[in-house]
Amino acid sequence: MTFSALDTAHVAHALRLAERGLYTTQPNPRVGCVIAHGEQVVGQGWHERAGQPHAEVFALRDAGERARGATAYVTLEPCAHYGRTPPCADALIAAGVARVVIAAEDPFPKVAGRGIEKLRAAGIDVESGLLRDAAREINIGFFSRIERGRPWVRVKLAMSLDGRTALANGESKWITGEAARADVQRWRARSSAILTGSGTVLADNPRLTVRLEDQSFTPPLRVVLDRQLRTPAGSHVLDGQTPTLLLHAADAKPVDQRFDNVERMSVAEQDGALDLRAVLALLAERGCSELHVEAGPTLCGALFAAGLADELLLYVAPLLLGDAARPLLHLPALTDMADRWSLRCIDQRQLGPDWRLQLRAS
Amino acid sequence: MTFSALDTAHVAHALRLAERGLYTTQPNPRVGCVIAHGEQVVGQGWHERAGQPHAEVFALRDAGERARGATAYVTLEPCAHYGRTPPCADALIAAGVARVVIAAEDPFPKVAGRGIEKLRAAGIDVESGLLRDAAREINIGFFSRIERGRPWVRVKLAMSLDGRTALANGESKWITGEAARADVQRWRARSSAILTGSGTVLADNPRLTVRLEDQSFTPPLRVVLDRQLRTPAGSHVLDGQTPTLLLHAADAKPVDQRFDNVERMSVAEQDGALDLRAVLALLAERGCSELHVEAGPTLCGALFAAGLADELLLYVAPLLLGDAARPLLHLPALTDMADRWSLRCIDQRQLGPDWRLQLRAS
Repeated sequence: MTFSALDTAHVAHALRLAERGLYTTQPNPRVGCVIAHGEQVVGQGWHERAGQPHAEVFALRDAGERARGATAYVTLEPCAHYGRTPPCADALIAAGVARVVIAAEDPFPKVAGRGIEKLRAAGIDVESGLLRDAAREINIGFFSRIERGRPWVRVKLAMSLDGRTALANGESKWITGEAARADVQRWRARSSAILTGSGTVLADNPRLTVRLEDQSFTPPLRVVLDRQLRTPAGSHVLDGQTPTLLLHAADAKPVDQRFDNVERMSVAEQDGALDLRAVLALLAERGCSELHVEAGPTLCGALFAAGLADELLLYVAPLLLGDAARPLLHLPALTDMADRWSLRCIDQRQLGPDWRLQLRAS
Repeated sequence: MTFSALDTAHVAHALRLAERGLYTTQPNPRVGCVIAHGEQVVGQGWHERAGQPHAEVFALRDAGERARGATAYVTLEPCAHYGRTPPCADALIAAGVARVVIAAEDPFPKVAGRGIEKLRAAGIDVESGLLRDAAREINIGFFSRIERGRPWVRVKLAMSLDGRTALANGESKWITGEAARADVQRWRARSSAILTGSGTVLADNPRLTVRLEDQSFTPPLRVVLDRQLRTPAGSHVLDGQTPTLLLHAADAKPVDQRFDNVERMSVAEQDGALDLRAVLALLAERGCSELHVEAGPTLCGALFAAGLADELLLYVAPLLLGDAARPLLHLPALTDMADRWSLRCIDQRQLGPDWRLQLRAS
């Protein structure tokens, strides 16, 4: 590697630019680009929305003639194929950049390595892997979808100190405070889709929309697992206010005008429930990168039990509800502590009186 | 108030001195004293062990002749009565200090205000209340015992992320890591007594001793609530290795040689269990200031339900055990979220892979 501290600073800058697309690039990845001569930044850009130009194009436009002989810092390998926009590799070559520094290689089969090859074939000095982990992190869902064929599954749960999500009678309002609830809206907004189960729809009738003052986000798809088509007429998820997908068993009945505003699809079953792997594969096919799960202990527990929950976003309120209240997760009973599900914490912070823990399977 | 920044610095210094007695002054309070002329500290001392001199005496000895005309900073009002040692107020007067700054007034009936009066009667300028909250905090158990007639009750629990303390089969070893377990030893060491129930003795056969390399602590009294005298012969708590008190119902049987190494007392019953208020009153009578509780969900839950748990020391391991595992606390079932037990967090920290949350009733 021949990266300098200056290279690192420029890539870090490009990553911050990429973050500006956090809520809007769906289903595309978030990408940032900086064009510089030594310390001097002559162009910057980021990808904002699918169908619009990529980060490199905005940065080259910003740099104009100053791109010639410069180094381009890109958070993701430039594309080499014609999609909705022409290949960025071609644009960098045409602009006469001398060197390209790439954080993460593109995992997409049509691109992987070919962007780098094309640039090198044009005589450009290309290096990759600088701040790769951070670059993959910002597109964790995109990489999961392309590399694993399933979205990054982030399970959000809110609980009391003693691990309870609601009273025995189902009352669950206001376990966490305002700051935690506002934070959840941002996690919803960055997701491609929000998944819930029909049990939660029946119990809580959630809207599963994003409530943020700033409306510049791509509304996530609402996905309801409703094997038996139990979702009652008049449920918020059937209101057609935002794209919604209802997944059910092949033989579920009755199909009636309740579902006129939503898309319906049948999914294979496994052990008396919808096959979660099939559900995730289907969502990945449709471009779902980050899947935000807000569901009850059964669906959330099933995702953990099957090893399909990649991340737990856990809000903890400083309250005690007692053992008669509802549990966090239904999981198969353990007889050996060695079988416990181990997680590792990647972030913790205070949100008003509550905490947010972000954990990943370890 | 006429406190200067210098006064605050000296009292803060005296509080740090007081902390040196954290593990040893039982049943006395932890007290520190600084004697200074302006910026210059001419003497310092702290109370180390009951029966030995108080903080003021050590500080005066350290200062010698330089105490004359100085200001004495004391974290707790100097005593005015003859206990096991002569009154400290007299010693300060005899040494010729000109001014005394007191952090917290002594709540003890034999002292309360009389130390201040005595000093003032001798012409000494006396002020109190500087860093009072911090001074009360370091002796939170002492103040609770004197002012409320019961110890400060600190409930220690260790759980998984989903609020579970053990598997359904009782296996609970190693929920938390080494750093958390070592931390627990320090909380045990600063306590006057460690409380458990016979259920925990039967299930886990705990030692309830302090395992620290540094042996300079006053060993806490082990207290077992054993209404029916179920503690089996051979239990660690009956081994006589450290003072132990077994509390039982008046009609409990059989009393046999199992209990030869421990003290036994009967306590009144209430609703089919030992009366927890009576237990706490009895322990306060015996000089118990900080009571460390390591027990199961029934006893811990009963303390919270009765409003007798002052503090929750909660260790959280990044694991999931599922809803078949054992709950944190048995509490009466709630039907209204307004009845939940609200706590406030006063400290949180990472201990290896685990967290420690310190919470108080709010």
